[in-house]
Amino acid sequence: MMSHYVRVRTEALQTFLSSVFEHRGFSASDAAFIAETLIDADRHGIASHGVQRMAMYDHKLRHGMIDPKARISVVSDCKACAVLDGHSGMGQLISRDAMELAMRKAREHGIGIVSVRDSNHFGTAGFWARIAADQGFIGVATTNSNPLAVPTHAGLPALGSNPIAFAVGHGSDQFVYDAATSTVSLGKIEVLAKLGEPIEGDWAEDEHGAIEHDSARMMSKITAEHRIGGLTPLGGSGELNAGYKGYGLNLIVEILTGVLSGGILSWDMHGQHICHCFAAIDLDAFGGAAVISERVAALSARLRALPSVDGHPVLVAGDKERIAARSNIDSIAIDPATFAQLQTISERVGEPVPDGIADADANPASANLGSRTNHE
Amino acid sequence: MMSHYVRVRTEALQTFLSSVFEHRGFSASDAAFIAETLIDADRHGIASHGVQRMAMYDHKLRHGMIDPKARISVVSDCKACAVLDGHSGMGQLISRDAMELAMRKAREHGIGIVSVRDSNHFGTAGFWARIAADQGFIGVATTNSNPLAVPTHAGLPALGSNPIAFAVGHGSDQFVYDAATSTVSLGKIEVLAKLGEPIEGDWAEDEHGAIEHDSARMMSKITAEHRIGGLTPLGGSGELNAGYKGYGLNLIVEILTGVLSGGILSWDMHGQHICHCFAAIDLDAFGGAAVISERVAALSARLRALPSVDGHPVLVAGDKERIAARSNIDSIAIDPATFAQLQTISERVGEPVPDGIADADANPASANLGSRTNHE
Repeated sequence: MMSHYVRVRTEALQTFLSSVFEHRGFSASDAAFIAETLIDADRHGIASHGVQRMAMYDHKLRHGMIDPKARISVVSDCKACAVLDGHSGMGQLISRDAMELAMRKAREHGIGIVSVRDSNHFGTAGFWARIAADQGFIGVATTNSNPLAVPTHAGLPALGSNPIAFAVGHGSDQFVYDAATSTVSLGKIEVLAKLGEPIEGDWAEDEHGAIEHDSARMMSKITAEHRIGGLTPLGGSGELNAGYKGYGLNLIVEILTGVLSGGILSWDMHGQHICHCFAAIDLDAFGGAAVISERVAALSARLRALPSVDGHPVLVAGDKERIAARSNIDSIAIDPATFAQLQTISERVGEPVPDGIADADANPASANLGSRTNHE
Repeated sequence: MMSHYVRVRTEALQTFLSSVFEHRGFSASDAAFIAETLIDADRHGIASHGVQRMAMYDHKLRHGMIDPKARISVVSDCKACAVLDGHSGMGQLISRDAMELAMRKAREHGIGIVSVRDSNHFGTAGFWARIAADQGFIGVATTNSNPLAVPTHAGLPALGSNPIAFAVGHGSDQFVYDAATSTVSLGKIEVLAKLGEPIEGDWAEDEHGAIEHDSARMMSKITAEHRIGGLTPLGGSGELNAGYKGYGLNLIVEILTGVLSGGILSWDMHGQHICHCFAAIDLDAFGGAAVISERVAALSARLRALPSVDGHPVLVAGDKERIAARSNIDSIAIDPATFAQLQTISERVGEPVPDGIADADANPASANLGSRTNHE
């Protein structure tokens, strides 16, 4: 096993990942699409949701937890609203259809909203919001997740990481918000635990409500069969810095996903039957996509021009991921553990894993600690 | 001037406030409605947005900053979407019409979204979301505001307090989220400054990005002509506890209000021309309002039953305000400064101010420090 990050050409990686998904029962075009979504996450510096997830997807596909042949069904469809059932299919394929439906409804009605039940992990929420923004809509995407975050004053993880994504505008001024409603995603604590480093921020609390700084202990508590403690809601533990606001936002996501779709709640989730919600807003009634994009760009330019108080530039949601993408145009860096997993998968399916073209010059996982976009 | 809080019967207060608004040029029914919205805030323990605001409203009405005779115009109206121009009218009347329109569109299309420009302060965002929830919709309401909050890494208040409200369900299980996207509202710091108490939480930062604990100094900086420093975004200063998430949510509100409506941004605001956004989602496509209300109630019941880690009960958004309302069924408590302001207004319009029925037993302003619902 390699001990360094290695850069791999995205083209070769795309070919390899597509082959794996074809081997697991997807059509060539669906397999290529799923591969694209994973590489897109790595390109944007969101390694937690990229190729690193292949082992998880492959495991679930081999054990029937994700059904590659699932047919999405329409539970209800009424004017601008719909509910879809994913029948335990691949999250990315279900989400593609659901966001397409939301955009079709937005073209017809001005807005569309589609809640989805019984799906699987859909990658980054921001990917789906961006798809709508790229076509001139406001795009919104949310999902519930495994129980990881604690309600204010409780010591048990009754809440998912429940991210919200919202995108509008285009090009280098596209506004792309994508963030868990917990303070951070579990992925950030997982990285610290792997590195043997403590948690500096107020990111997690134990079963007694005390801030937990030991990353390894937190991981063992939150991955135990009877999970205790968990991620703090955005705003932190207790009420001092308004953690009840992150808790409330988290429940808004739960209502739009598990509650509206009639699916299961984060609280009851064991890695399957995930629920999403997608919305698209047509901008014609608001002066058109070009006008709104220009206004968003003008506001962003004013914000980026603000002097910094601490040497870190003032950015706008989406900027960090675009900066990362500039370093990852033709290739992405893969950590050694993930590369080893790809080799195992390669042996299983009989497709050669892509060659590394060079050792990576930086550790993308720690760069990724600052990303806005991680959630479980 | 009285030196104690005094309780006043809501019926008498309603009559008095209605008379004042009639004197300022509103019809009897509009005047009664505006009065109701203010008393509703006090009843729910949100004193910052209640009768305490009468002096501000009266000042703006007397100086032509709010036009009681403004006629709302439709800038655009296209299927589920619309933009209204409030022409500097009273925020509560504009918001009533805008939310009515959003609900009408939701009945027709499944969802409705209405962005509003050139309005005025509309009271609590939650009031408008609740109106929609009471009629079986999901209700959403947002507004921009004077510049009060700092973007991550900046030392200037370029952002409004920009609250988000979201309500669904009914009765004592109605989910009502209503919170500024800054850590707290300026009102909480104002209360501390009046009491001569420091800021304990990481609620505000100075122009150098350092946490500001001196409430009086913060108030003087944020109310100066050239405002410096400001409220931290939800998640706090810098990136350690994900303050960029609150900053991003704040910009989502700015996009839905100032940007979509073509109105002015929080950054450029001086107490007037405020922009809002309202949305309603019909629940028919999702199984109907009764089914969704039941699911929300069941989730809330599970959350409330969680054991507490610190003696404070686990609540759900809306619970605190309902608990406050139980103490304020027939009367509300008014602080001495506000009561003196009501007496001044009383003399101006020649209507008697309601009698106090008793000294209040508790200080509702400090009780209100824990409220979820304050924003400027």
